[in-house]
Amino acid sequence: MTSTVTAFAAAAAGEPLTRTTIERRDLGAHDIMVEIHYSGICHSDIHQVHGDWGKGLFPMVPGHEIAGIVTGTGSEVSAHQVGDRVGVGVIINSCGRCDNCADGRQQYCTGGGSVETYGDIDRYRGDEPTQGGYSSHIVVDENFAVRIPEGLSLQEAAPLLCAGITTYSPLKHWNAGPGKKVAVIGLGGLGHVAVKLAHAMGAEVTVLSQSLRKKDDGLKLGADHYYATSDPTTFEELAGTFDLIICTVSAPLDVDAHLNLLTTEGTMVYLGVPDQPISAGVFSLLAGRRSLAGSLIGGIPETQEMLDFCAEHGIGAEVEVVRADQINDAFKRVLNSDVRYRFVIDISTLKPAA
Amino acid sequence: MTSTVTAFAAAAAGEPLTRTTIERRDLGAHDIMVEIHYSGICHSDIHQVHGDWGKGLFPMVPGHEIAGIVTGTGSEVSAHQVGDRVGVGVIINSCGRCDNCADGRQQYCTGGGSVETYGDIDRYRGDEPTQGGYSSHIVVDENFAVRIPEGLSLQEAAPLLCAGITTYSPLKHWNAGPGKKVAVIGLGGLGHVAVKLAHAMGAEVTVLSQSLRKKDDGLKLGADHYYATSDPTTFEELAGTFDLIICTVSAPLDVDAHLNLLTTEGTMVYLGVPDQPISAGVFSLLAGRRSLAGSLIGGIPETQEMLDFCAEHGIGAEVEVVRADQINDAFKRVLNSDVRYRFVIDISTLKPAA
Repeated sequence: MTSTVTAFAAAAAGEPLTRTTIERRDLGAHDIMVEIHYSGICHSDIHQVHGDWGKGLFPMVPGHEIAGIVTGTGSEVSAHQVGDRVGVGVIINSCGRCDNCADGRQQYCTGGGSVETYGDIDRYRGDEPTQGGYSSHIVVDENFAVRIPEGLSLQEAAPLLCAGITTYSPLKHWNAGPGKKVAVIGLGGLGHVAVKLAHAMGAEVTVLSQSLRKKDDGLKLGADHYYATSDPTTFEELAGTFDLIICTVSAPLDVDAHLNLLTTEGTMVYLGVPDQPISAGVFSLLAGRRSLAGSLIGGIPETQEMLDFCAEHGIGAEVEVVRADQINDAFKRVLNSDVRYRFVIDISTLKPAA
Repeated sequence: MTSTVTAFAAAAAGEPLTRTTIERRDLGAHDIMVEIHYSGICHSDIHQVHGDWGKGLFPMVPGHEIAGIVTGTGSEVSAHQVGDRVGVGVIINSCGRCDNCADGRQQYCTGGGSVETYGDIDRYRGDEPTQGGYSSHIVVDENFAVRIPEGLSLQEAAPLLCAGITTYSPLKHWNAGPGKKVAVIGLGGLGHVAVKLAHAMGAEVTVLSQSLRKKDDGLKLGADHYYATSDPTTFEELAGTFDLIICTVSAPLDVDAHLNLLTTEGTMVYLGVPDQPISAGVFSLLAGRRSLAGSLIGGIPETQEMLDFCAEHGIGAEVEVVRADQINDAFKRVLNSDVRYRFVIDISTLKPAA
């Protein structure tokens, strides 16, 4: 017995998303059933649906920024109850036994790797293909769902499950806080949350964007400064300034020019993977013991910590809610950077009109 | 009044080194005169003499691994006395006022930059050109000379002033010690000291070398393991192993393959500058929150700390002492990797036979 649920799926790489139904497994002892209320549209959904990252698994139901309500619990579930507001993010399983899993860093699981919420095969559960949040319900292990605290609406919480944790984890790891100068490259889905988080952590925040088009927004979101990287004087004026640079864009960058904006022992962190390898002169690293790093979402305990932090500081994503029949248009608008700052699908619009 | 001292210099880029004389300035209030006993031959001396790094200042007296005895002190010198055994390394001045100088990290001086021991212009001292350790004496500010502890011979201490501090600083900064696995890429002048230091710090040390040619040496020097990077199975076997990789070679590397040897949150550090920019896939950084960093020698207090550590643990460089008239041959042998592991010039052979 499985449950048949409504979903929006791409039948093949590059195809538009259309309404369909998928099966969700019966509740295992540690599973919960989540009625999804909102699902964020992450840029990576578009890459996956377009098959940009290699052969995907189709039909594909994207979505890894999921917020909803628990409607069922397995016999041994203790973390969540029916009626709880919960979120599901980018991963829904991992080996559970390696050092990283034991430390709650499931995203770096070395015992077989984490399992992505959609477009993946759950190697720990009979090779079940995974399907994401553009659907009315999801069945997920209780340990891969997090509590959405009161004070955060489900629609503004949904994008935090990816954009929030992806930026929170490196800001925390590299000690963004009072006395630290943090630059955020790009003011998009990730960048706008990074600005809010870094500001709430007490850091002095600078946005580095291609143009000054979104400057007013950036300052309202909590940035102290806003510079255009298309202006060469930016790189002169800000040389040696930042303790931490968070790169939220995947467009090619002049890596050396950005490393040169770091202070001694500063770190530049990539959160996404550019299409091409990056190139840098080693001297940019040597001069000031600088580091170039990468960071990948966050573990489950840190995701909960991030949501609690957001609730405490009144931080949600800036969202534009769309109907299910607007998903394909929303994809196009994301590709044109025409969103401030995250589309969230109202999942109640998923079912066909009665 | 200046002092005329014997030296070996290149008259122009690419010329062999020949005996000559140079002037050393009179002692200022904070200057000391050092009678040089041994001067190490660093690979970078060859690059500089060959003009590989842009137009150099000629005539050029190389040498930044200097060990000798104080033979004179300025009126206000307090750090050293006549008869003291001292070393001079890669830098001999800096602004003295920026945060990094105040913290003893003169190598990262942001107030005008540090001044190199040779081939540079001392911007803080009337644009005096600097000349290095292939000479009988050097006059240097007392604050840029360090004490060579009893128990370290001058000849084995000399290379520590560059090769020692260049490897000690990143090992210390990235916490090489008990429970940590450290890989050293390359068993040359820097690499062989890195192995000794990391072993003495308590880390588990692996040498990654092109071949197993120097394996016996590596194990004797303190390595626990020795692998050939020409063997592809090395990269499979050691995937995810190292907390820290110290790269002492400047030959082009497969950066992604080496990053993949790091454990979660591991760091790969470059100590030298390859001729070409390095290229890496960002996913190699994201997968495991890894870092790619650079490190540049060390500050003066840390250089003293390094020498004290070496004396305490009986660590000196493995040297082959050469006469002054062998310098040009030694340069050729360094380029052929035909040295175990550092040439040191016996400066008493510098003067022409009476």
